[in-house]
Amino acid sequence: MKSTELKVTFRSGRTSVYVLPGTTILEAAGRAGIILQTPCGGNGTCGKCRVRVTSGQCSPSEGCGRILSDDQIKQGFRLACQARVENHLAVDIPRESRFEAKVQILTGDTGRDVALGPVVRKCYFNLDVPSRRNASSDVGRLKAEVGDVEIPFPLLRRLSGFLRSHEWSGTAVLSAGRMIGLEAGDTSVSAHGLAVDLGTTTIVGTLFDLVSGEERAVASLMNPQVGYGDDVLSRIFRIRESGSALSEMQQSVIRALNGLVQQLTREAGAAARHIYEIVVAGNSTMQQILCGLDPSALGETPFVQVFDSSLSVSATALGLAVNPAAEVFVFPQVGGFVGGDTVSGMLAARMDGARKPTLLVDIGTNGEIVLAHDGKFQATSTAAGPAFEGARIVQGMRATAGAIEKVVIRDDVLFNVIGNAPPAGLCGTALIDTVAELLRLGIISESGRIRSAEEAPSDLAASLRSRLVSTNGDIGFLLVPAEGTSSREPIYLWQKDVRELQLAMGAIRAGVNMLLRRAGLGPGDLDSVLLAGAFGNFIRRSNARRIGLLPQIPCSRIRFIGNAASLGAKLALLSAAERERASVLRGKTEHVDLSLDPGFQMEFAEAMIFPTCDIDSCPSERM
Amino acid sequence: MKSTELKVTFRSGRTSVYVLPGTTILEAAGRAGIILQTPCGGNGTCGKCRVRVTSGQCSPSEGCGRILSDDQIKQGFRLACQARVENHLAVDIPRESRFEAKVQILTGDTGRDVALGPVVRKCYFNLDVPSRRNASSDVGRLKAEVGDVEIPFPLLRRLSGFLRSHEWSGTAVLSAGRMIGLEAGDTSVSAHGLAVDLGTTTIVGTLFDLVSGEERAVASLMNPQVGYGDDVLSRIFRIRESGSALSEMQQSVIRALNGLVQQLTREAGAAARHIYEIVVAGNSTMQQILCGLDPSALGETPFVQVFDSSLSVSATALGLAVNPAAEVFVFPQVGGFVGGDTVSGMLAARMDGARKPTLLVDIGTNGEIVLAHDGKFQATSTAAGPAFEGARIVQGMRATAGAIEKVVIRDDVLFNVIGNAPPAGLCGTALIDTVAELLRLGIISESGRIRSAEEAPSDLAASLRSRLVSTNGDIGFLLVPAEGTSSREPIYLWQKDVRELQLAMGAIRAGVNMLLRRAGLGPGDLDSVLLAGAFGNFIRRSNARRIGLLPQIPCSRIRFIGNAASLGAKLALLSAAERERASVLRGKTEHVDLSLDPGFQMEFAEAMIFPTCDIDSCPSERM
Repeated sequence: MKSTELKVTFRSGRTSVYVLPGTTILEAAGRAGIILQTPCGGNGTCGKCRVRVTSGQCSPSEGCGRILSDDQIKQGFRLACQARVENHLAVDIPRESRFEAKVQILTGDTGRDVALGPVVRKCYFNLDVPSRRNASSDVGRLKAEVGDVEIPFPLLRRLSGFLRSHEWSGTAVLSAGRMIGLEAGDTSVSAHGLAVDLGTTTIVGTLFDLVSGEERAVASLMNPQVGYGDDVLSRIFRIRESGSALSEMQQSVIRALNGLVQQLTREAGAAARHIYEIVVAGNSTMQQILCGLDPSALGETPFVQVFDSSLSVSATALGLAVNPAAEVFVFPQVGGFVGGDTVSGMLAARMDGARKPTLLVDIGTNGEIVLAHDGKFQATSTAAGPAFEGARIVQGMRATAGAIEKVVIRDDVLFNVIGNAPPAGLCGTALIDTVAELLRLGIISESGRIRSAEEAPSDLAASLRSRLVSTNGDIGFLLVPAEGTSSREPIYLWQKDVRELQLAMGAIRAGVNMLLRRAGLGPGDLDSVLLAGAFGNFIRRSNARRIGLLPQIPCSRIRFIGNAASLGAKLALLSAAERERASVLRGKTEHVDLSLDPGFQMEFAEAMIFPTCDIDSCPSERM
Repeated sequence: MKSTELKVTFRSGRTSVYVLPGTTILEAAGRAGIILQTPCGGNGTCGKCRVRVTSGQCSPSEGCGRILSDDQIKQGFRLACQARVENHLAVDIPRESRFEAKVQILTGDTGRDVALGPVVRKCYFNLDVPSRRNASSDVGRLKAEVGDVEIPFPLLRRLSGFLRSHEWSGTAVLSAGRMIGLEAGDTSVSAHGLAVDLGTTTIVGTLFDLVSGEERAVASLMNPQVGYGDDVLSRIFRIRESGSALSEMQQSVIRALNGLVQQLTREAGAAARHIYEIVVAGNSTMQQILCGLDPSALGETPFVQVFDSSLSVSATALGLAVNPAAEVFVFPQVGGFVGGDTVSGMLAARMDGARKPTLLVDIGTNGEIVLAHDGKFQATSTAAGPAFEGARIVQGMRATAGAIEKVVIRDDVLFNVIGNAPPAGLCGTALIDTVAELLRLGIISESGRIRSAEEAPSDLAASLRSRLVSTNGDIGFLLVPAEGTSSREPIYLWQKDVRELQLAMGAIRAGVNMLLRRAGLGPGDLDSVLLAGAFGNFIRRSNARRIGLLPQIPCSRIRFIGNAASLGAKLALLSAAERERASVLRGKTEHVDLSLDPGFQMEFAEAMIFPTCDIDSCPSERM
């Protein structure tokens, strides 16, 4: 049954989502891409996820009452992990409740984690005219005002003429002890930087004001390389086959970035020539193609990257239409398919601060897993395949409008559809939800078999039993009857879909288990599991854990950290110290090639078996 | 009288000079451009200038006997400052007796001053092929062998293809922590560097093997910019007048350097593409024009240079046909007309090691003077004009074949001519000699007036008195009668010539006095005076001091150090530490603009008056 969905509006009306009644505000915010702080894991005990309901009726839960004062509750404040959506709501999220605030940029006051200190800064100068009392050289005169910076020769050649034709004043653009630009007049307040999250599918660009540290505009677009293949391997194979594919793909992403720059600068009222820094975080294949570095060796064992330390590449050399002196900082890479996005995510997740065993999991077509233990890091990637993105699922689809994204099974089947539209198919989170619910109900066995109506547990409600059908030798569970769907075709979960999910889940689970085993740890030793990446934000932890995708630890120790790769790129843009921190993190990270471990195949086979039972439920995900 | 000249041959017959009988071997060697160690000032007490006479009769002087054993004397060893040329001689000069040996490059053993450590080094690598056991990135694999160097992006782009097409081996060219080249095969023994002494008149290039530290070839040519004017000011004015002159002059010197490179590599059997480093020392105008940096501001008060710290300029960007990754190191400059050649000279002269007040004097059209005192340095330049180069002297000429270069006046006039030819005119050293001798004889007064035959001292020999002539109101002293000259015209020293010398000498002397005065020192406080530069090598110290060009201190404290600017460039080529040392020296050096000092005009006027008497004579210059 498609339940009546409720609209929740965030960001002063800029973002809305539709959710099932009873959904927590925490989950609704996550659906809207806003990750809240939940150091207690959403147990209603830390009070960090405080939000304010500004419109609509929202009863305070018991949990809210334990943490918030009567006055606060009267003003509309609620704990997002406790308060449930029972009406249309408008919700304000205070800056300090967002996960990003934890690693927020300092722009003046103290107490926060990261000080604004970009690599590029500008310095206005107004020099004394040479005189007999001060006849120092042009360079010496300038350095006396802007500091002892290196002046590259092409700028040095311009310097004397510039000073004399601009009345000895202007603005120097400085980058890491070097002068990279010389501009007429006082342009010291106009310095921008671009943080790029370079995904296989999507590219997200965020424009920052490097003087104030403020985010000025954000925009995203599809990675045009999808025309060469959906995943990295198909793109690598295209490059191996065709002499021109590397250059074509590089050019396509450069054009996309130039388009982003145009869009962002228009939106922010900024000039592209005032973009002096670009930071890029992406997987190894995306980073190498961007730089024109042949990724062919990533297409065959032993999966060799071209580089591992960070790169600094001239934006002009790449063909980026920003300030000609701008440099592109490309994140360090760990090895194989563990790329810059993982290092960036580790940076954002503050993995270097982990005092107890901590696991970072980024679930996607490739799952990247990092274990922090004893001040060192082990990282691996595992090929989960595209099941979580809805591909290879009979009625699967991407998480776009019309996709069922959440499924709850009581006596009836409740579900939530993206865009408040009639359902057209299942996306990855709904796949996980459905399988988890059917496991709880005994409809799916440990081995992943969907039981027939006859085999299903005797206590199963007739309304559910009747949903089990056999067609052409395949068995399926009816999620939405024909009359409720956009195509007027019923939507099922098929046996084949469960097998695809087992393969995907098994890959991630085996990777986690191998890393834990190498470190001599069990799942119970994990202090926390950090879920990163777009997909990770949307899953229900208890369901993901039920199917075995996440380790068997209490939900309170499983936390969403949002798009960590993107956040890490922003940190590296706004702070030179964060770049250094990323390099140090990289240096302490060992790449684990799972395929080298003789035990991996056995581990993988075992990991595909679903866990027999679950250990707790997540209060904030109950509904 | 042109005395019978004697031939002295050095360097196994490669260099010969003709000298007057009685000349010391020390002076003859200087004439041949070989500067010997004379820490005792040529007093025959230190024994450092030991040479070996291999052919011809040369009686050991009393001084030789004090220092050398009978055995050594029997083997032909002599002290160059004591032994006199009375016959044609062939002389061997042991390496350790040369001034350059003091700052000689260490190529293995110990005990010397400068360790071979050029900025550029090459490293052959032969990497393991990637395997499952070692799947590190291409960059990581290379760095494991050649060290943690920065790899600039253009090389990084080539790296993967290079490694795979060259069986994972090759030679990395490293420069100051960066990789600048990647060569097929093992080319690690082929690394050359070029030291350039970039003079206003002459350019000298020396090619070094950077692996062994050995000098491989040396060549010089006229600076083609002389076509734009003899001195720096006339070239600066051409640049101020014409929009294209800077570029033309830059191109002319680049072409000249490319010609030198061709000549040197041909001679040494080396390849121009294996020249990875060029070090240039020149005056501020020459250095700026080479780099295409407009020297116009040096053409007017307050004489502002474009730069003062050293420059590193891409050789390719300048148009030099050497390895495309080669950098040109241009010496730091002090201020105004105190340029890179002075800093280079300070480096070679080990001014930073001076524990007592030490003066460095480089006499040329511009005299550069540096005073070391209390760990700091004051440097100035003073416009001596071209008199020392024979210009503006009625019968003056450059120190080339046919120039009288030495004059000794007893009852007769003895002189020495360059190239053992009939005399055609006077060069600067002969001008100094003549005036010094005439001052001693009382023929020239303190004020610089040439006395007439009637006014000359009564005890003057008639043979000399008869040489004083009055023509057209000018008075002159006959040096060579018509029948002894190449043109059959007599050669005179004219009153006007004395005035020119007074101006030139006065400028240097006033500069020295001003620096001493600023430091609260008198000439007697000077521990040593170091004479640098081509001209400095050839003057007779006692004569230079007699006319006031050098301070009134014993000759033993006045030392020749040869072409220090050139030697400094070689040091900076062969040792990165020496470059650093040059920068430190520059940082401790204050530029003194004499024209700013209100006392300078008075000082200059007084300095033009010749000293009344001399304080000692230099034994090694007696003849």
